[in-house]
Amino acid sequence: MTDRRASRNDNRTEAIMRAALDLALEVGYAKLSIEAVATRAGVGKHTVYRRWPSRGLLFLDSVLTLSTEDLSHPNTGDVVADLREVITKAVDLLDQPPWGPLYRALIGEAQHDPEVATALNRRFIEPQTADTLARLKAAKEQGELAPDFDLDLAFDVLSGPLYYRLLITQQPITHDYIDRVLRAVFAGMSPRAQTR
Amino acid sequence: MTDRRASRNDNRTEAIMRAALDLALEVGYAKLSIEAVATRAGVGKHTVYRRWPSRGLLFLDSVLTLSTEDLSHPNTGDVVADLREVITKAVDLLDQPPWGPLYRALIGEAQHDPEVATALNRRFIEPQTADTLARLKAAKEQGELAPDFDLDLAFDVLSGPLYYRLLITQQPITHDYIDRVLRAVFAGMSPRAQTR
Repeated sequence: MTDRRASRNDNRTEAIMRAALDLALEVGYAKLSIEAVATRAGVGKHTVYRRWPSRGLLFLDSVLTLSTEDLSHPNTGDVVADLREVITKAVDLLDQPPWGPLYRALIGEAQHDPEVATALNRRFIEPQTADTLARLKAAKEQGELAPDFDLDLAFDVLSGPLYYRLLITQQPITHDYIDRVLRAVFAGMSPRAQTR
Repeated sequence: MTDRRASRNDNRTEAIMRAALDLALEVGYAKLSIEAVATRAGVGKHTVYRRWPSRGLLFLDSVLTLSTEDLSHPNTGDVVADLREVITKAVDLLDQPPWGPLYRALIGEAQHDPEVATALNRRFIEPQTADTLARLKAAKEQGELAPDFDLDLAFDVLSGPLYYRLLITQQPITHDYIDRVLRAVFAGMSPRAQTR
């Protein structure tokens, strides 16, 4: 492939993903069609299908091109503060468009399309989980957490309540709510010597 | 309305909801159409639309007709055991058809349709939460929980990790997993005098 042709393909790919995001925000993901995306991007329907076998996988790729702030954990020596910083950034991102409605729609689609669910986990959830786990492991080694702290469960217990609000009750996830979750999770998990 | 006509309407309503559930299990909710439901139930499309303004609301009503075991909490004096019993029943229900795939599809639809999200909360989530809260309140009054136990957060922290597995990582929710969540949530929340 010549450089010029490769670059034209990149431009098309970008235009298609941009069109998918714009349309999902305008009409809602439920009404998004490959036809409408192709029209908006100025390409043929087959150009879209050549690259993406389904609407869900196109949408996944498109959502994951959205920029996020850096969501990796600092290590200031205070694990709860470091977790709070990253969780707050992530929650603030989800609190408004484009991330909020698009990420919810993506998880909605993952309930109907197993390929989307698998790819979402591999490309988005697992890297986040690994970064959180590394920070918690460091805290355990530094004696900030009890020796029996359930590291493998920690990400689920920290993020579960946030996803529960996002997807089920759809109540706002305030900074106060984040603090309460952190308190609930860490109340019994710090070394006993440090508890009152 | 004569009795005979009322009873014919009830039968039709039941046939439509049954058809919606059967088709959702056979072809998946993503491919479910009002047309197909009407055909399967042997009624006209307009008969369906007269009662349900959208596919999502028809599906919600249909899923909520599925029987569940009694999910109200006993009070044996051991709050963790009582919660474990009810959570285990609910998780076992979600572990297999019809509840498993249909409930996930319903939550998926709630991400796209705010009316479904609101009705799901009002009719299914809120009564469950209220029952759990009543059991936790009794435990607090009986001194089983610390005075600063965050009652309003408890349901989110208990069920959040389970929903996170169900909807995001889609890993199996084993009985061991339920025990670990209960341990994590209650480790720091029992009265200090009872901790080691």
